[in-house]
Amino acid sequence: MIVAAQPAGLADVRAANLAVVLRHVRGNAPCSRADIAAATGLNKATVSILVADLIRRRLLRETGPSGHRVGRPSTMLGLDGMPYAVVGIEVGSDQLTAIAVDLPGTRLLSWHRSFADHATSPGRAVATIVALARRAAAHVGRQGRQVLGLTVAVPGLVDGDGVVRHSPNLGWHNLDLRGDLETALRKPDYPIAVDNNANLAILAEQRYGPYPGPANLAYLAGDSGISAGIVVEGQLLRGSRGFSGAIGHIQVMPDGPPCVCGRRGCLEAVAGIPALIRRALPDAESGPRRTDHAPDVEEVQRRAKANDPSTLEALAETGRWLGYGASLLANLLNPDVVILGGRFALLAPWLLASAEATLTERAVAPRAGGCRIVASTLGAGSAAPGAAARVLDHIDAGHLPEPSARATSHEASQAYAR
Amino acid sequence: MIVAAQPAGLADVRAANLAVVLRHVRGNAPCSRADIAAATGLNKATVSILVADLIRRRLLRETGPSGHRVGRPSTMLGLDGMPYAVVGIEVGSDQLTAIAVDLPGTRLLSWHRSFADHATSPGRAVATIVALARRAAAHVGRQGRQVLGLTVAVPGLVDGDGVVRHSPNLGWHNLDLRGDLETALRKPDYPIAVDNNANLAILAEQRYGPYPGPANLAYLAGDSGISAGIVVEGQLLRGSRGFSGAIGHIQVMPDGPPCVCGRRGCLEAVAGIPALIRRALPDAESGPRRTDHAPDVEEVQRRAKANDPSTLEALAETGRWLGYGASLLANLLNPDVVILGGRFALLAPWLLASAEATLTERAVAPRAGGCRIVASTLGAGSAAPGAAARVLDHIDAGHLPEPSARATSHEASQAYAR
Repeated sequence: MIVAAQPAGLADVRAANLAVVLRHVRGNAPCSRADIAAATGLNKATVSILVADLIRRRLLRETGPSGHRVGRPSTMLGLDGMPYAVVGIEVGSDQLTAIAVDLPGTRLLSWHRSFADHATSPGRAVATIVALARRAAAHVGRQGRQVLGLTVAVPGLVDGDGVVRHSPNLGWHNLDLRGDLETALRKPDYPIAVDNNANLAILAEQRYGPYPGPANLAYLAGDSGISAGIVVEGQLLRGSRGFSGAIGHIQVMPDGPPCVCGRRGCLEAVAGIPALIRRALPDAESGPRRTDHAPDVEEVQRRAKANDPSTLEALAETGRWLGYGASLLANLLNPDVVILGGRFALLAPWLLASAEATLTERAVAPRAGGCRIVASTLGAGSAAPGAAARVLDHIDAGHLPEPSARATSHEASQAYAR
Repeated sequence: MIVAAQPAGLADVRAANLAVVLRHVRGNAPCSRADIAAATGLNKATVSILVADLIRRRLLRETGPSGHRVGRPSTMLGLDGMPYAVVGIEVGSDQLTAIAVDLPGTRLLSWHRSFADHATSPGRAVATIVALARRAAAHVGRQGRQVLGLTVAVPGLVDGDGVVRHSPNLGWHNLDLRGDLETALRKPDYPIAVDNNANLAILAEQRYGPYPGPANLAYLAGDSGISAGIVVEGQLLRGSRGFSGAIGHIQVMPDGPPCVCGRRGCLEAVAGIPALIRRALPDAESGPRRTDHAPDVEEVQRRAKANDPSTLEALAETGRWLGYGASLLANLLNPDVVILGGRFALLAPWLLASAEATLTERAVAPRAGGCRIVASTLGAGSAAPGAAARVLDHIDAGHLPEPSARATSHEASQAYAR
């Protein structure tokens, strides 16, 4: 007699239940229909119907009989890695990264190319991004895969419509990147999204990093700029217009060095990768403003490994500023962990000690309220996998694809049968 | 055939549905059983059973037939204001405030008393708080009411067990205030909670202020100290150990004035009420450290109303620092609004202009990402109503009381019938 309040429509319930089954298999494959029923509370007949639908959509596949079990063997299920791909692109200040993964998250391609174009004009930059997206889609298309989504990660403030409102490091203002991609890619049948790089990187940390459950996380994305991704009880914090995490332009040194945003002494002006390079390699800067930081970061790493004192002090100084940034997050948000990502992840062995010391000193809660600073276990490039993860999150939330003609063609079926 | 995944137990569903009906009546009284059914999607027979249960628990009552309607008049329902009371106490650095409200939120008592005791010893301070709580409970008890909960608001870091881990302004460290209250009040049959004052004040803003729906809000509680309450998409942000919102001890002026926490140049050292009083009333400070700021704040108001230039400049300077604090919140969290509360609410007419200007200047998003600074519409004392609101939130979430012998006694029934 008592029923749930605000009952959902039958279609909603079905989509929700399909997603429950899909997520269970993602976390527990290989597993049987009976395993799914036991774990989710759905009855067995319902699970069979849902699994049949997911197999028809080519999201799940039967992987063979179970071994090592008492009684009659069950048919085991896993995610179907063959028919689909999702694409993530990270726009950095000096390079573009494209990756594609299949539904289980296996890497299908991982490309880097230099990206000095942003310094010329937004139009040229967008054309370069479009060309990379098109090549990535064509590459997975030749494998017989249907693209389920493309997300582009950008360092800067991105609104809910995918418009880059303000990116001091790229020099972009009110650039409708999502709209431009939609047009240039001729309104493809998959969704295109544009999001902040730190927001996407922290999605990758949630999905692939060692942070299970509804944790409180923060991520400091380090490149030319610095921005923060924030996860509260497992949910990405976006703010009212999507502009959260702009930690890079909080002033930490009054009358400090000039920042690309026009202010002085911003966190990224003292703790960003260019500031570190100036500090560690005072001779390196010559000629016009460098846009490709990779060789200099490698040189800093090389000297640090050789225990060069002035390099170690430059890194410790950068670590102190990052600890300052982490203390802002700790005092306001009391996260479990602040993750150093982007290029900071490569340099973390020489940043962490001074960062932790400054965090503890500046956080008002004893022992920083339990907050630790750690390096990303995903390396420097979390934003591109995070961009792809955003598409997978969308699917896992119940926005399920219908297989296209391509993905159900004989050719693809043959590939699938292999 | 398709059922909801992870089905809840029948008892859980019933509690959830009772809460749905209770909240609907809270928001829409007077309303009929048919109104509830139409709005919640529960069927009419179910609503009748749930309403009967809520009337038995004395949470709802029939308020008479509807007027002004077509057709047969319905019996209208409202919250029952008679049998229960909830108590909230705010511990300030210079005064204690106790309030009690009934289930609909009507004020039953509102008491203030000075609180210099905290300067002597935590034991004396706790005894004073206990005495006030006991008097408030006795007062509502004499009205035939059953107390449903007591919450105490404290300026400082409070953990999930109600232990005040660190309160620089009260000089308390690791004080088990909830445990001490439980013991001194002899383990009463109602729940006791202790929470941060800004966290509770923002609950009051959510419940009674003009911020409907899942807004992104921040609240700056101004007294001797400053702390922030943060609401993200309608949910209070507590952090991993309950230590969020410690904005008062973020350094905003390197080598600035000393702070009670032992650091220098913290936000509260330059923008707190004592700093304002020193700035606005340089002659006022004499003798031992003042603990009762009320007369000085009134004098500042009086001079500001008389347009005294140095007072106005002192207030503008405080406003600039509060705008700096708001810019930290805006850059990291992108809220819709930062609410000036506590004693800042009394002084807001002279703080807001400079605060808004500094916010706009320091926020990296254009026009501060849509964030505005406003004064609390609830006046200076939001934390005590917020403490009471926390108990009401707990009830509205489905933790429903069983009426005690007292609340169902003949005497109380008579009071109820009046």
